[in-house]
Amino acid sequence: MPFPLRKNIVAIAGYIPGEQPQDGEFIKLNTNENPYPPSPRVLRALHKAVNSSLRLYPDPLADGLRDLAASIYGGGVVNVLAGNGSDELLSILARCLVGKGDRVVYPVPTYTLYDTLIAIQEGEKVTVDYPSDFTLPEKIFSEMSSLTIVANPNSPSGTLIPLEQIERLARSVSGVLVIDEAYIDFAEGDGISALPIIHRHANLVVLRSFSKAFSLAGMRVGLAFAPEEIVQAMIKAKDSYNLSSLSLVSAAAALEDLPWMFRNVKRVQRTRKKLTQSLKRLGFAVYPSQANFVLVRKQGENLRGIYEKLKRRKILVRYFDVPGLRDTLRITVGTSTETDAFLRELAVILESM
Amino acid sequence: MPFPLRKNIVAIAGYIPGEQPQDGEFIKLNTNENPYPPSPRVLRALHKAVNSSLRLYPDPLADGLRDLAASIYGGGVVNVLAGNGSDELLSILARCLVGKGDRVVYPVPTYTLYDTLIAIQEGEKVTVDYPSDFTLPEKIFSEMSSLTIVANPNSPSGTLIPLEQIERLARSVSGVLVIDEAYIDFAEGDGISALPIIHRHANLVVLRSFSKAFSLAGMRVGLAFAPEEIVQAMIKAKDSYNLSSLSLVSAAAALEDLPWMFRNVKRVQRTRKKLTQSLKRLGFAVYPSQANFVLVRKQGENLRGIYEKLKRRKILVRYFDVPGLRDTLRITVGTSTETDAFLRELAVILESM
Repeated sequence: MPFPLRKNIVAIAGYIPGEQPQDGEFIKLNTNENPYPPSPRVLRALHKAVNSSLRLYPDPLADGLRDLAASIYGGGVVNVLAGNGSDELLSILARCLVGKGDRVVYPVPTYTLYDTLIAIQEGEKVTVDYPSDFTLPEKIFSEMSSLTIVANPNSPSGTLIPLEQIERLARSVSGVLVIDEAYIDFAEGDGISALPIIHRHANLVVLRSFSKAFSLAGMRVGLAFAPEEIVQAMIKAKDSYNLSSLSLVSAAAALEDLPWMFRNVKRVQRTRKKLTQSLKRLGFAVYPSQANFVLVRKQGENLRGIYEKLKRRKILVRYFDVPGLRDTLRITVGTSTETDAFLRELAVILESM
Repeated sequence: MPFPLRKNIVAIAGYIPGEQPQDGEFIKLNTNENPYPPSPRVLRALHKAVNSSLRLYPDPLADGLRDLAASIYGGGVVNVLAGNGSDELLSILARCLVGKGDRVVYPVPTYTLYDTLIAIQEGEKVTVDYPSDFTLPEKIFSEMSSLTIVANPNSPSGTLIPLEQIERLARSVSGVLVIDEAYIDFAEGDGISALPIIHRHANLVVLRSFSKAFSLAGMRVGLAFAPEEIVQAMIKAKDSYNLSSLSLVSAAAALEDLPWMFRNVKRVQRTRKKLTQSLKRLGFAVYPSQANFVLVRKQGENLRGIYEKLKRRKILVRYFDVPGLRDTLRITVGTSTETDAFLRELAVILESM
């Protein structure tokens, strides 16, 4: 090699995103997109913003969106940062908090992007296994770390950690605690988000996404809620103009139509319930999901065959070809019609096996 | 501080982007946006893409755009990567190539974002002063480095390094050479871009931007052209879905209407010539610009006053409050009308001083 690519970069496998067929033929139940469209208000705002002013740079700090987010979710504008998806916010946090050899702790299995971000920073990955019921493992409370991450609800399990446990963790960890709440809008009940307790902890960061509940995966917008000192550091480490003008417009318009999001969430919750019951009847163990997907397991059976047979029938679900997850499939909650089609095809496949 | 923010992040001042007033009252000649709108084809494509499919993730590798770019600019799809602005591509390259203490070399003054990116990576910044005529300093050919960066045309000077010199540099440097060609479409003459010589060098990367010539600063799209091995590493270090669906659509549509871009470039070139002559008549030294801005100097005079007086008259130009540049102003080439208004106000200000 005639030039010095960094060894840590060459060594990483890279995060492999779920398949994104561009032909529209598939029933896509593999990457947890919302089956319902974004608010008509979002589409109207975008049409209005598609004009010659796209020649101008966007607002580098996204103050309009941050203001609006603060007014809805609490805290001040100084406690919010917008990112190019919550993926970018995770990447920025890694740059701010993780130097060579710094410990990053998280329970697994979870979102595998965390692995990649740590490798890029040459941090030390310290994973703690979730027990079979996906409660927070006791060991995580005593690990020293620069950064601890908990996806809540977790992916791929869909399970939720109660807020008391999150708060106890915020008090226990030595470094920053990031709660990745990409899926939290799909959870049922009150007092589940960590947003209202941020002001009580100097080390707590909560991430939200517009990709799931707001039906805007294509626009790449996420929000970080954090103490001002952390937001200030993140601003230094982010690209100057990290969100396009249209991404900013779409997120603001989505926040201005919360009822639309709530209505779609309710529909997903109803379908999730039906999907869960049907999958149990088909003989799968189903984890109790508070997200817009369910994880099913057939203990010890490799489910790749089912994934492949579904794919041939133009239905995509997520199969994770990694130790510990090969006997599971993660199925996004689609529309009622999509879910029925999936269940029908799955039943046929199971009968033929 | 109750948690460990990295010292290198806390220490950096952060890149300060030019003012982006959101009220539309100003004649904006401060951040090198194109004064002409994007192609109608781009706006049509965007309107068409604003629909319910925004609920879906974008193509993570942007293969459609990469294919199109390869067919226009040469090389294969494996030699192209799309980024969230060329800023993100620079940031990705820094992550791939710059570890703690690794040397990054570039001639200055230039784009100050390079400083920030090196600080984030804890690299060692090694700057080489441009001589007063902004030719490539001889010293740069013998510096050891992991990464060497040349903005060509350079900002804030607008000056161009001939391709023979770039090629000589590619052969001389020990690491990767990045040529940041954000402004190259505004340069006159043939054989100036380094794109056609990439295949001859395993260490040469060329960056392009849609923010300037294509009038799409608001959409945040850039392209990297590089040997396959470097593109592969960049893919590992980038966020999975780094460009929104609409950003991808806008860039592809812009590439499908090159005549629109060329026409606007011609208009900017004509106005640049007139602006240069007028500024000389007003007593400024003007660097020969091949970009969509000109740098003027009044040797030893602090030009902050002129900048401020122009701002009060609702005209924004760029004043760099750093050693060596306080006697300069950088003025974006606007429309003919904007440029006339600027020259008129500037003449009044100079008379009153």
